[in-house]
Amino acid sequence: MLVVMNPNAPKEHIERVREKILKLDCKPHEIFGKDNIAIAVLGNTKDIDKEDLSILPSVQHVLRVSKKYKLVSRMMKNEDTVLDLNGTTIGGKDLFIVAGPCSVEERESVLETAGQLNELGVKFFRAGAYKPRSSPYAFQGLKLKGLQYLDDVKKEFGMQIVTEVLNPRTINEVAEVADILQIGARNMQNFTLLEEAGATGKPILLKRGMSATVEDLLLSAEYIAAQNNSKIILCERGIRTFEKATRNTLDLNAIPVVKKHSHLPIVVDPSHGIGIADKVPAMALASVAAGADGLMLEVHHSPEDAWSDGFQTLNMADFKSLLDKVKQLAPIVGKELTI
Amino acid sequence: MLVVMNPNAPKEHIERVREKILKLDCKPHEIFGKDNIAIAVLGNTKDIDKEDLSILPSVQHVLRVSKKYKLVSRMMKNEDTVLDLNGTTIGGKDLFIVAGPCSVEERESVLETAGQLNELGVKFFRAGAYKPRSSPYAFQGLKLKGLQYLDDVKKEFGMQIVTEVLNPRTINEVAEVADILQIGARNMQNFTLLEEAGATGKPILLKRGMSATVEDLLLSAEYIAAQNNSKIILCERGIRTFEKATRNTLDLNAIPVVKKHSHLPIVVDPSHGIGIADKVPAMALASVAAGADGLMLEVHHSPEDAWSDGFQTLNMADFKSLLDKVKQLAPIVGKELTI
Amino acid sequence: MLVVMNPNAPKEHIERVREKILKLDCKPHEIFGKDNIAIAVLGNTKDIDKEDLSILPSVQHVLRVSKKYKLVSRMMKNEDTVLDLNGTTIGGKDLFIVAGPCSVEERESVLETAGQLNELGVKFFRAGAYKPRSSPYAFQGLKLKGLQYLDDVKKEFGMQIVTEVLNPRTINEVAEVADILQIGARNMQNFTLLEEAGATGKPILLKRGMSATVEDLLLSAEYIAAQNNSKIILCERGIRTFEKATRNTLDLNAIPVVKKHSHLPIVVDPSHGIGIADKVPAMALASVAAGADGLMLEVHHSPEDAWSDGFQTLNMADFKSLLDKVKQLAPIVGKELTI
Amino acid sequence: MLVVMNPNAPKEHIERVREKILKLDCKPHEIFGKDNIAIAVLGNTKDIDKEDLSILPSVQHVLRVSKKYKLVSRMMKNEDTVLDLNGTTIGGKDLFIVAGPCSVEERESVLETAGQLNELGVKFFRAGAYKPRSSPYAFQGLKLKGLQYLDDVKKEFGMQIVTEVLNPRTINEVAEVADILQIGARNMQNFTLLEEAGATGKPILLKRGMSATVEDLLLSAEYIAAQNNSKIILCERGIRTFEKATRNTLDLNAIPVVKKHSHLPIVVDPSHGIGIADKVPAMALASVAAGADGLMLEVHHSPEDAWSDGFQTLNMADFKSLLDKVKQLAPIVGKELTI
Repeated sequence: MLVVMNPNAPKEHIERVREKILKLDCKPHEIFGKDNIAIAVLGNTKDIDKEDLSILPSVQHVLRVSKKYKLVSRMMKNEDTVLDLNGTTIGGKDLFIVAGPCSVEERESVLETAGQLNELGVKFFRAGAYKPRSSPYAFQGLKLKGLQYLDDVKKEFGMQIVTEVLNPRTINEVAEVADILQIGARNMQNFTLLEEAGATGKPILLKRGMSATVEDLLLSAEYIAAQNNSKIILCERGIRTFEKATRNTLDLNAIPVVKKHSHLPIVVDPSHGIGIADKVPAMALASVAAGADGLMLEVHHSPEDAWSDGFQTLNMADFKSLLDKVKQLAPIVGKELTI
Repeated sequence: MLVVMNPNAPKEHIERVREKILKLDCKPHEIFGKDNIAIAVLGNTKDIDKEDLSILPSVQHVLRVSKKYKLVSRMMKNEDTVLDLNGTTIGGKDLFIVAGPCSVEERESVLETAGQLNELGVKFFRAGAYKPRSSPYAFQGLKLKGLQYLDDVKKEFGMQIVTEVLNPRTINEVAEVADILQIGARNMQNFTLLEEAGATGKPILLKRGMSATVEDLLLSAEYIAAQNNSKIILCERGIRTFEKATRNTLDLNAIPVVKKHSHLPIVVDPSHGIGIADKVPAMALASVAAGADGLMLEVHHSPEDAWSDGFQTLNMADFKSLLDKVKQLAPIVGKELTI
Repeated sequence: MLVVMNPNAPKEHIERVREKILKLDCKPHEIFGKDNIAIAVLGNTKDIDKEDLSILPSVQHVLRVSKKYKLVSRMMKNEDTVLDLNGTTIGGKDLFIVAGPCSVEERESVLETAGQLNELGVKFFRAGAYKPRSSPYAFQGLKLKGLQYLDDVKKEFGMQIVTEVLNPRTINEVAEVADILQIGARNMQNFTLLEEAGATGKPILLKRGMSATVEDLLLSAEYIAAQNNSKIILCERGIRTFEKATRNTLDLNAIPVVKKHSHLPIVVDPSHGIGIADKVPAMALASVAAGADGLMLEVHHSPEDAWSDGFQTLNMADFKSLLDKVKQLAPIVGKELTI
Repeated sequence: MLVVMNPNAPKEHIERVREKILKLDCKPHEIFGKDNIAIAVLGNTKDIDKEDLSILPSVQHVLRVSKKYKLVSRMMKNEDTVLDLNGTTIGGKDLFIVAGPCSVEERESVLETAGQLNELGVKFFRAGAYKPRSSPYAFQGLKLKGLQYLDDVKKEFGMQIVTEVLNPRTINEVAEVADILQIGARNMQNFTLLEEAGATGKPILLKRGMSATVEDLLLSAEYIAAQNNSKIILCERGIRTFEKATRNTLDLNAIPVVKKHSHLPIVVDPSHGIGIADKVPAMALASVAAGADGLMLEVHHSPEDAWSDGFQTLNMADFKSLLDKVKQLAPIVGKELTI
């Protein structure tokens, strides 16, 4: 249920709506839009009479929302959400680029890759200190040492850090270094992690699960939003189908579908999505053309030496050449690449 | 098995290779490339000794091909296949655009849509006279009358016709009007139809089946090629996945995969692929950005009046606006839209 | 639309309903059930007033059917369809067993396998004379010679023949030998083939397509039924999913779903379904337990010498041991194995 | 890598192998089988020379294992794992039955259902105190109060409890009441949860993820086994496919595949698998016929009043009737239902 109020409703009117909602055993949640103020009524709204709320002052109308998600929906907030991370915007005109190796590797290697990316103007560095791996015997990341190296990248180059958080117990140590907390595909429905990561207030990059529908993705985003954290970036990274020629099937259809139903930004990870380095640039360009707000790419100064995922990792030359094309393409779809 | 010969091998050397292959109970099939001449050895090659062929004059080397398809593979012919249809090329620099309603409708309606497309410079008109329908009670197309109207479009506007052939028994009547025979997703593995359509020598637009892998698609193309018909255009049109928000999941990953393994052109049908009109332009742009050689689009002068698939059909204004963007985007990926 | 009449309605009342339907530009199609007579109204029924039909004598009521299929639905006919093929019933209490090699092979081999199956009491022999193959270079079947050998099996052992028809042009030659025409998964939506095979009046075994929903399967069956041929046997044979450990994913869920919505019998082909011989018996037993009306199995007197699909083909000992277990299991689900 | 030793190898020989493995910077893990003792070498074994281990006394041979999972594989241990839970065995001849409502509901309701199940001889009661829900606004379970009611069931009827654990932070409180910790499909790759739940030493029922391959499932089981906890029960509960007629596609193919590659027991949850109550018995019987070691079923004394999943929940009469059929079916596949 959604209470739509005049954009210039006085504070006391908003307060009266909030109080009424609480009296009805529900929880209010406001979003201040350009054209109006929307107050979501969270909880069991089945037995609430719309009249109880619509008669309050400054209330324009009261809607029952059939979608299972509310806070992240366009119904709640029609304008695109634009995040501002120390001057870089995500979800607006600027294309957001985050690049780096799959895993944090030895210090020199990480700094080498980061340095080269920094020279290209990349402002967000990605690398996993904690790696979710199907096999318990595969390399699980450098963990604390990895976080330390990411901090070194931050200090050395002033880059912002995007890194994955796997475990509610280590959120705090990751959040100390990360500027954006990444939640991976395997954890998209790890609701404890969503809530605890959301509660940090940090921006969250939420990857779509391998068999998650777009609605599932938006519902998982709603878990974060329900923690009063609207700094959410969705990420398409490939789904599972019968096709065996690619690692996953990057589902770019998700971009216009998300854009229709949600105000949140969506970026694409074509490196995992198609999983073969020489096919990544084609899918990266397609992502931008389809309306993505950004790209997350695996890039390494020497992919053949990468500790993991080398076969899907771009080298610097190919990454630079891709950026050049993205720069040309962006204005056609109303975007800009300023790096 | 593939016999690779010098590009300037004299006719009699080629003939000796052909004769030897026939003697080995196999069938030769030549493709003349820029850098060499490749002769595929079709049939049971397991027991053939490579030496028997490699010692012949002008033979550079003999390869065993592990892929199940040969004639359509890059191994057989490294350069892109470029078709020439009365001056329009497909598979080269020019983007190929085919547009029109889902079905052939009343004469005036068809001519109206065709006329408006013609004014926009569209040279290929699509519309189904024979419609494959899941239900026997759904509209199955105007059939012969529909072909007649398509012929009228041809005569009136000089447009070339792309239309579906469903049935070996009606190939000839369709082929009289069609400039390109379309084989639909449901018939991708209707091998009789592939062979008989292929044998007409007409260009074939072959759509990927809803659960076909890219390898399956290339094998079906091989059926056509084995009829000595190399005028094949592949078409990605969406696969079946668990996602319910879209009609199908348009799989743009297929583009770079096809480009890697085959010399054939590939176009995309985003109308069926995503199946919702307001999301078609995003996917059309993404297709071109991913390297597609063209687009096949459902366009109608009045989509709300369309007899079928109106919900996924673009109107003229949206189609024109899409073409404008495609025109800007094309050069970034080495293509051009000249209409 | 469905006109439900008294079971003892006199002929002239039925005739009046038929005439009225024809006057309304539709086609009548009767099914005589135990409890009533149902007359389907096929065609564009949107503008028909139910009153026009419900006032006719002996008419109980008139229903609008929301399902896209009618003739094959339980709504049209509540009792299970039971086919009688020369004394063997399919769809009733008796379990239907059809067995044999993937392809028709050399005459002695076919007769050897058939003879051994005959000794076990198997009454239906399967083997492909025409084989649909993804690759044009794979063995496509012995064709006419294969049909001849199948005819030899028929004459020698009195077994009935189930064999695939691929091509409208060869239906007649196949139908001369076959007691049941098989339409394969790849041709499930080859509507021309469905109609022409249906029109022969022969029983049709219709396999589910690899990405067909159960509704798609029933709609394809409806194409056959609309040819006044109700002798249809549905066959589940595995769908395509992301799982790579099996050839296909045998979808036994289809059995209770079909049983709920349709009166047609459904059998299962676990050989293609799971595609690994040592796992076929488990899936065959599961099929019967789930309520299947029969099993279609690849069996060979010497699977390692089979020309195709040997890895998924049972040998005689394993087949016999499976039959023994099926015999014990059948009564638990209200069935019987009499061979 | 696997070191296979004589079954009667003296302790000091085993110790020498363990020491050598530790020296090689790896971790030893023994499984004592009937025919031999297998010691897995966990860690980076690429550079280890087999000779280093094969020359040690009592070592029969040393194998490189190509599967990514080891401890749960048949290679490591050929005999089926049979768990003993207070006298009930799982994975042996006895079929394991666990039944109960989806969620823990009001105390009286839970005790009513449990009491009726207990009278039928059911020894394991299931109900979720913590519920993973796609939407943050859906009912998330009674949590601690729910655990209390489960404890009441335990005390009142002596039934053992199977209940889901969602969160590493609440494992201990769940483990105090639960006899078997359930890890749900959404958490199958929540590796932190796998490790922490595994480390409790409690039996774990691990559900297959909705898009997990059987190999993924076994790798997740390996995470638990690597915690020295071999009390693992796998559970098939339906995967995501394109089919819309059922909630999920219950994949019974997983049973013979798991049985081939792993020694762990596997049970089936047809309630979630097909998701429609009147189709659950068919799939439950099919599961047993396919070789499942048990069934997990949603049963309620009054499904229409169930707080969640009522549409897929059996009532007592249908559950009893199903048990009767299972009892008859079990011996055919070498099992027994003793309740």
